Amino acid sequence: MTAQAISERSPARSIQLTQVTEWEDGRLRPFDDALAAEEPLEIRVGDTPLTVTMRTPGNDEELAAGFLLTEGIVDSPEQIASLSPFANNAAGKGNGMRAALRECAFDPADLRRNFFAASSCGICGKASIEAIRLRGLRAPNPEFTFDPEMLCALPAKLRAAQTVFSRTGGLHAAALFDRSGELIVLREDIGRHNAVDKVVGWAMLERRLPLSENILLVSGRGGFEIVQKALAAGLPVLASVSAPSSLAVQLARELGLTLVGFLRGRRFVLYSGAQRCAEAGRTG
Amino acid sequence: MTAQAISERSPARSIQLTQVTEWEDGRLRPFDDALAAEEPLEIRVGDTPLTVTMRTPGNDEELAAGFLLTEGIVDSPEQIASLSPFANNAAGKGNGMRAALRECAFDPADLRRNFFAASSCGICGKASIEAIRLRGLRAPNPEFTFDPEMLCALPAKLRAAQTVFSRTGGLHAAALFDRSGELIVLREDIGRHNAVDKVVGWAMLERRLPLSENILLVSGRGGFEIVQKALAAGLPVLASVSAPSSLAVQLARELGLTLVGFLRGRRFVLYSGAQRCAEAGRTG
Repeated sequence: MTAQAISERSPARSIQLTQVTEWEDGRLRPFDDALAAEEPLEIRVGDTPLTVTMRTPGNDEELAAGFLLTEGIVDSPEQIASLSPFANNAAGKGNGMRAALRECAFDPADLRRNFFAASSCGICGKASIEAIRLRGLRAPNPEFTFDPEMLCALPAKLRAAQTVFSRTGGLHAAALFDRSGELIVLREDIGRHNAVDKVVGWAMLERRLPLSENILLVSGRGGFEIVQKALAAGLPVLASVSAPSSLAVQLARELGLTLVGFLRGRRFVLYSGAQRCAEAGRTG
Repeated sequence: MTAQAISERSPARSIQLTQVTEWEDGRLRPFDDALAAEEPLEIRVGDTPLTVTMRTPGNDEELAAGFLLTEGIVDSPEQIASLSPFANNAAGKGNGMRAALRECAFDPADLRRNFFAASSCGICGKASIEAIRLRGLRAPNPEFTFDPEMLCALPAKLRAAQTVFSRTGGLHAAALFDRSGELIVLREDIGRHNAVDKVVGWAMLERRLPLSENILLVSGRGGFEIVQKALAAGLPVLASVSAPSSLAVQLARELGLTLVGFLRGRRFVLYSGAQRCAEAGRTG
């Protein structure tokens, strides 16, 4: 993939400079700090407000496309007729993104229903998983395997590519790799789920779904929501440098996603789908 | 405060054990890992569903009380007539919390309106701040000052008290301290906003609001949402070991909260309200 895809972003909108005060060892001094920008984005389907998410401005089309897919509003890029920014404030700044859908029975209550119904037994982890299953998500590519040595090299590649993070320390990252460990696309956001939606949205707009030969690495914790989004994109492997939650592990196991946690140095933990880890013991 | 308040929790529900596979330096081995539990909690006002949040089970009353306050549904503990768990699934597990309110004009659309309206100019950071202002939140205690040396000691105290985190690596923490740096209460959750709501809810149920003489320390990044919750609780100082977002800083400045970031070792950054940092230069 091109350098453009890796770093495409609006740096001017992603970062804000401000004067702050540093205290160090008893001394105060002013300095200019770079902050990760946070602004609400309203996503509408036609004229129906769907959600407002606090996000880091930039790649808003990708964010909207990814959200529509990973939350189960659409199944394919063809269902999105258009994505267009709209200015929803007097300043004319585009903090809105409008989707026009086609061949898609959109019901604004769907998002809520994903949480609430789907199982007559009500609200619990099991019902949450059942709701995902009812969306028709299938087990990702069973043929895909990965080289553990390749996997161990990914966090360093992500960090090297995280330009905004290094300046602000305030952004989550999600990065898509191919099976050889080459970075395909990286997105950053104040919200981890938004970073994932941007990556998935990018892939969708590039007509690369399902991502059945790819690995997604996220910078923070892996929760239920992130596993759900990875499954919606057809990813066989989701890796994180930190710990997953119990429900994330349950969902990954039930739908056959390989979930990797604590990917640090020459060690990682396979929470599910360990069979995709190839050549284990090669160096043992 | 008592050790009970510091560690009150349901460890059995907060942690789940599961067998996983570790890869290390070419060798695979199975081991038992402790995961941070994640389950949805449905909060209702009477029979009206208000929200479903993915949370770590335990301290659900506090979470519901804190959510009602920090999201502007209620202004005082007196408006909550009762909080009672309800079993919303066949397994009879209480993943629901119902609030009965009094002397409080509850409108389910309020939460949405907090985002959407509040300003005719629409959706932008400025409107988000205006929405908070319209809720009647006032500048926290202008008389409160803190000793920077005391502040530097807080992260170690938080880590020492984080019993779940040390086992799972998967939980956010929020901890309340008094001005001498004594830990008053600590709560952990898979969601940082839930950890904050639990702390605020605890304080509310203990009739300790507003927290005008306290400091809140959170384990992760400080975004707009966390600043909003701190303001709703009347906290004068919010500290984090990481970076805040641009909108968090804007809101803190407009409403006069002292926002501290990068609290690590003998250094921190004051993003707003630096005047509350007392005795600066004492050791300089």
